[in-house]
Amino acid sequence: MGPMEETAVLKAHLGGKLEVRSRIPVRTSETMRLVYTPGVAEVCRRLIDHPEERSRYTWIGRTVAVVTNGTAVLSLGDIGPEASLPVMEAKAMLFRELAELNAVPILVRAKSPDFFAEIVEKIASSFGAVMLEDIESPACFAIERKLRERLPIPVLHADQHATAVAVLAAAMRASALLKKPHRELRVLIHGTGPAGLATARLLHAWGIRDLLLCEGNGALWSGKKPGEDSLHADVAAFANPSRESGRLEELLRGRDLLISTSGDFRLSQEAIRSMAKGAAVLAISNPQPVIAPEEAVAAGCALALDGTSLNNALAFPGLFRGALEAKADRFSEEMLLAAAQAIAQAAPEGRLVPDQLDRRLHRKVARAVAQAAFAPRQEMADCGEWVG
Amino acid sequence: MGPMEETAVLKAHLGGKLEVRSRIPVRTSETMRLVYTPGVAEVCRRLIDHPEERSRYTWIGRTVAVVTNGTAVLSLGDIGPEASLPVMEAKAMLFRELAELNAVPILVRAKSPDFFAEIVEKIASSFGAVMLEDIESPACFAIERKLRERLPIPVLHADQHATAVAVLAAAMRASALLKKPHRELRVLIHGTGPAGLATARLLHAWGIRDLLLCEGNGALWSGKKPGEDSLHADVAAFANPSRESGRLEELLRGRDLLISTSGDFRLSQEAIRSMAKGAAVLAISNPQPVIAPEEAVAAGCALALDGTSLNNALAFPGLFRGALEAKADRFSEEMLLAAAQAIAQAAPEGRLVPDQLDRRLHRKVARAVAQAAFAPRQEMADCGEWVG
Repeated sequence: MGPMEETAVLKAHLGGKLEVRSRIPVRTSETMRLVYTPGVAEVCRRLIDHPEERSRYTWIGRTVAVVTNGTAVLSLGDIGPEASLPVMEAKAMLFRELAELNAVPILVRAKSPDFFAEIVEKIASSFGAVMLEDIESPACFAIERKLRERLPIPVLHADQHATAVAVLAAAMRASALLKKPHRELRVLIHGTGPAGLATARLLHAWGIRDLLLCEGNGALWSGKKPGEDSLHADVAAFANPSRESGRLEELLRGRDLLISTSGDFRLSQEAIRSMAKGAAVLAISNPQPVIAPEEAVAAGCALALDGTSLNNALAFPGLFRGALEAKADRFSEEMLLAAAQAIAQAAPEGRLVPDQLDRRLHRKVARAVAQAAFAPRQEMADCGEWVG
Repeated sequence: MGPMEETAVLKAHLGGKLEVRSRIPVRTSETMRLVYTPGVAEVCRRLIDHPEERSRYTWIGRTVAVVTNGTAVLSLGDIGPEASLPVMEAKAMLFRELAELNAVPILVRAKSPDFFAEIVEKIASSFGAVMLEDIESPACFAIERKLRERLPIPVLHADQHATAVAVLAAAMRASALLKKPHRELRVLIHGTGPAGLATARLLHAWGIRDLLLCEGNGALWSGKKPGEDSLHADVAAFANPSRESGRLEELLRGRDLLISTSGDFRLSQEAIRSMAKGAAVLAISNPQPVIAPEEAVAAGCALALDGTSLNNALAFPGLFRGALEAKADRFSEEMLLAAAQAIAQAAPEGRLVPDQLDRRLHRKVARAVAQAAFAPRQEMADCGEWVG
């Protein structure tokens, strides 16, 4: 295929999707003396004496690294860091467009959690926060844990927690719309990758009691997979309280809410019909959901969404904006729960989630996250008004 | 000092000097489907099959990493990576303003050349080129060599080569204005740090025959300093062909051109008077030059400049723009010489150097560098016109 045969998608990507701009026009030698030599030395000296002012006098207070090794990219799998850059640019683009943050794709050629974390640690002071993206399981768990322990800035694996926040928001709305108190909701999570496990944890933190997990192929998850036991013992401890057994289609019987993060399996409409009356289906795996929303609705579901509208882009812009505004040193569970609640509250009448392109949504999420951070929320007015 | 007492310099730095923008407004779900999911997967698949198209469909074709460990920042010395960020932002700002390139500051917390180079190597595919900046000597030499050997993209230590290119341009102009053929010019380089040594190499490559180097404290450089012998044996081999001896003030006698890259020493007007009739002084160390240009002129120099107008900002924007346009895999000596010639040719009547804020200058330098790269110069029109 030559340039003349470029598709609309390829044409839209010509030259990439990002640009670094100067916030200050540099046209005169007077400006040069302020922002370049000799003036800039004064700012360096100031930061030597007051390192806590780095987010005031440099861009890091609004800048996120989007970091990947390209080992679990979309449905493409391990394509390596280089070929994953278009996805990282897309995430960075959404940070700017939806939350007025700077984001920089950082491709790391390392797979071992120790080495990956060491590299990120050594360059992390270039940024105000780190979003991990598209890293394979189980390495993603160790990488996130190490970086959260070692870095004094917020770190979040988007495929785990930003997805979990978006799903929790939809679950909150489902509970409200179906008029079923969340402590009585019977939930089944299909898929036990990073998204499924993080969603299980967050739903549990919210107060869901009856929660089952099953693997992508439909088999009940026991938390006993070799090598992952210790990592997910917490989930295994609260999952499947009623000791059910079977495969996805059997486990679905009588459930109020199906959350599917796996596309490796196709559900029949018959299985959906066995769910509780007025059930909800969130089938978020991309590009192939376990069942299409319209099929689920045709089979009697009251509410259904796929990954196009229920996407972690609902959550990550506001999560990072809020954490940076609050000058938080990490993401707490309270911040994640607050983000989910803000998203749920922003959903229009009768809908499970708001429009992810609505800038006001991300502003609300950021405010809720910053408040939940319990850090003094310092003004950002100096850095430009939020106009979203 | 509280916020109310911020100086003009600090005020100019509020919120930092850079911004990452999206090149595509994201307002509709149709756009989301092109540039985010599901469209972006097509671009990833394309890059898996055609890795050589990464600079076509991502931003790396126009993106430079400005990389430092903060060990030799301005006259401040080893202030660490964190406090050096305002300088790196300034360089990135100039990349955008002068050459319409994206540049991202990368702060590396590592001092050993091996470790530093390893970290940069592992993240380098995030960028189209690497500019090393403000790294102490002698580590800077090993770091640059290792990265040039290992990376398939252009790497340049600005304090060496961009400075040397700017100085060579001024030397070319001095030769023309003083009407002294360059092969007859008697040159003294004061300061044997990265800038002095790289300048010596480039002047030699241009054809300067009579070249002396002396240390910052004024003593003749023999190239015999422990630990650096092997690194700079090439310079020692051509420096001081007439076997002179003495300190700076003695060595200056009868010289046509003094290039001082060191501010550790102050020259008397008497010493300047001992230079050849119609001599030139380039005293570029910041913030303190070896002698102020007006003092040098008062002592009989025909031409004199300090580091404010003779700055590596004359060179680095066009060097990187040209290398990226040519899709060069490295900077060659030919590219450096071509850049110096283009800068010299752009100098106004009677002046040693052009205005570094003149956008046309950087376009000319970029063209000359790209031509010298001997690579097929592919069009960049798709990525937006050069409007400088």
